[in-house]
Amino acid sequence: MNEYRQKIQKWISNNRPKGTRLLKQLVQEKSTQGHEGSSQAIIIEKCREMGLEIDIWEPGGTALVNHPYFVSPREKFKGSPNVIGVLKGSGAGRSIILNGHIDVVPEGDREQWQFDPFAGEEVDGKVFGRGSTDMKGGNVALLLAMEAIISAGIRLKGDVIFQSVIEEESGGAGTLAAILKGYKADGVIIPEPTNMKIFPRQQGSMWFRCIVEGRSAHGGTRYQGVSAIDKAIHVIRHIEKLEMRRNARINDPLYKDIPIPIPINIGKMTGGTWPSSVPDQIVLEGRIGVGPDEKLEDVKEEFAGWMASISTQDSWFVEHPVKVEWFGAQWVPGKIDLNHDLMKSLSTVYKEVKEKAPVIEASPWGTDGGLFTKIGNMPTVVFGPGVTEVAHYPNEYIVLDTLFEYAEIIALTLIDWCGVENVS
Amino acid sequence: MNEYRQKIQKWISNNRPKGTRLLKQLVQEKSTQGHEGSSQAIIIEKCREMGLEIDIWEPGGTALVNHPYFVSPREKFKGSPNVIGVLKGSGAGRSIILNGHIDVVPEGDREQWQFDPFAGEEVDGKVFGRGSTDMKGGNVALLLAMEAIISAGIRLKGDVIFQSVIEEESGGAGTLAAILKGYKADGVIIPEPTNMKIFPRQQGSMWFRCIVEGRSAHGGTRYQGVSAIDKAIHVIRHIEKLEMRRNARINDPLYKDIPIPIPINIGKMTGGTWPSSVPDQIVLEGRIGVGPDEKLEDVKEEFAGWMASISTQDSWFVEHPVKVEWFGAQWVPGKIDLNHDLMKSLSTVYKEVKEKAPVIEASPWGTDGGLFTKIGNMPTVVFGPGVTEVAHYPNEYIVLDTLFEYAEIIALTLIDWCGVENVS
Repeated sequence: MNEYRQKIQKWISNNRPKGTRLLKQLVQEKSTQGHEGSSQAIIIEKCREMGLEIDIWEPGGTALVNHPYFVSPREKFKGSPNVIGVLKGSGAGRSIILNGHIDVVPEGDREQWQFDPFAGEEVDGKVFGRGSTDMKGGNVALLLAMEAIISAGIRLKGDVIFQSVIEEESGGAGTLAAILKGYKADGVIIPEPTNMKIFPRQQGSMWFRCIVEGRSAHGGTRYQGVSAIDKAIHVIRHIEKLEMRRNARINDPLYKDIPIPIPINIGKMTGGTWPSSVPDQIVLEGRIGVGPDEKLEDVKEEFAGWMASISTQDSWFVEHPVKVEWFGAQWVPGKIDLNHDLMKSLSTVYKEVKEKAPVIEASPWGTDGGLFTKIGNMPTVVFGPGVTEVAHYPNEYIVLDTLFEYAEIIALTLIDWCGVENVS
Repeated sequence: MNEYRQKIQKWISNNRPKGTRLLKQLVQEKSTQGHEGSSQAIIIEKCREMGLEIDIWEPGGTALVNHPYFVSPREKFKGSPNVIGVLKGSGAGRSIILNGHIDVVPEGDREQWQFDPFAGEEVDGKVFGRGSTDMKGGNVALLLAMEAIISAGIRLKGDVIFQSVIEEESGGAGTLAAILKGYKADGVIIPEPTNMKIFPRQQGSMWFRCIVEGRSAHGGTRYQGVSAIDKAIHVIRHIEKLEMRRNARINDPLYKDIPIPIPINIGKMTGGTWPSSVPDQIVLEGRIGVGPDEKLEDVKEEFAGWMASISTQDSWFVEHPVKVEWFGAQWVPGKIDLNHDLMKSLSTVYKEVKEKAPVIEASPWGTDGGLFTKIGNMPTVVFGPGVTEVAHYPNEYIVLDTLFEYAEIIALTLIDWCGVENVS
């Protein structure tokens, strides 16, 4: 391995300016949902330059949009292609998918950004901008790892399938389309921003809406009404109990240091129309975490049953049951065995490069990894160079040193995992 | 009195169709805020027909809009006149103001109305429509009472000042303008929909807004954030304690059967922007009831102090104090002595006509009566024929029998209060 490592290190070290430029270019193309085309064009150009076999297509069709795991606010993806670049192996080696999403979340309130979120400013060894950490930095590192191998003249045995997908931030329709198109490998790595931690567990999630009824009255005689706020507080307390119940079942040691492995978050609370009236409706919207071993449907059923049971505590809910709706995004949970070869390979290389053992943790959020696991039946690890804390926030950035170190780890993992053809 | 009573009764009985038609016409003109002109045109025509001295003006000017009790979302009232019609007395009698507002609240969701809210449908002795009960029915009854006296050839000693004002539903700028213009009388009757109860106390009210902060985090690690919903629930509980404290101070026997004499109602609760994020802000909007003996400023001060004290229970509020704002409408509380001559006069006549004692209660809401009491220093009674329960609601109606009975009581009260010139 050492002979390869020196070559890889040297190539990456020499090509830092090139990698940094690629990242900046990608950040400068604002690839929010529906606007991924220009970023993908840069990826396509890079894959061409590297001599990869390229597949470009706009997802769609009934097999995709009617799939039970399809979630997106849109059904047509014109101008939003998936891009796949394959580095063909010589054969007989283990294949791998390196999957990164090209879509980014909106920048939010620009006033809160120190720099233009789409300028790709480089300051003190960091590149700032929306998508730098989540996850264009990771994508660039994947491409650098592959290019380092090619440039070093190393011929891998297994295929390396690089996927630049759309729609991860909206529930994974891009990755689902790639799986349905038949892309398959012996393992998957996704460079979501994990602060270089290795995540063999991914929390899934779904969005729910609870509609809670009250009965209106004039505020001056509020005792003649029933406040939907009071009833909604009852519902919130009931949900907290469900959260406790659900988390008490989690006994995977990877979760032992996590205060709430699969939290239920109430993110929005809205209701009432007039300060002088007793509110007759409150709408709660939230996210329920889904454990790696759970099925989305089972969680929905448990939630509905729990909500129905509230009427045994307060008879108001007999006549006015809480209405539960599932809406918007969902992320499928995922899991890989801790002793899986991909975990071993990645951990060994990590230790070699970083001279310390990797932190292995359960992920508090979902990624496209769940789709690979549940739909594609492919063992998947989430591991990336981005900074968890700044993803989706103003002043998002990535540390360039980490990005290049990550590229080295990936290159060496590919060598270990896919195997190298002896060129004698 | 009996000789007058027969004449009055007869005239009212003969003129029921005319009175009913006037009410329907008024309901058919949708006089929501800013659209009072066409309803007032009908009132003006009626006052002309009755030979009253008429004063019509669009309120405005710095004395009004800079007045500490001025509350309105607008400062200009073009097309929204106040109308006053005076039945001059012969002199030496007690004068009275009969004050009714011409503005109505919006009809809300039309789907919930059995009839068109602006058709003035008459069914089973009731007239349906927005404003029928609150309070065009009352206004029509006042005019009928005056017309009955005129038509019966009864000459009163004191002036009867009929006021058809705008803006009651938005905080009383119409009545405030009439007071500031110099209209003054020895007593005031306001025919708000009291179900024929006599209200010598009026609860005032103000609207407050509490802005409660949290700290955002991803829902998958919600324990890293501080939910503004949780903190807002704490604030709501704290407000409930203030309500208990404030109501414990009320010892007026008129409130003894009222569960909460001066309630605090939370009417709206809004916050959070994303199901998967811990909400970082919740806005509560509500109405605080103000006791008849309280000053608005004192209540504001007590509320602010109480909100500041929450930090002694939860240190979060030390760094993140609840922001309190006062906004929108306010109604000044009002009170008249139970032994005041106007109360005696009204009660005596009521007993004579209805053959039972009137129900005398404290009003759970504010009216323009507070302005008459606090700014105009005029003793005011709220007493009207409308149906309390349907005010501001779909399918608002008034019972015609009650309206005409009320007109009789008012006519006889005017005779008693203002005195009659002996026509020998």
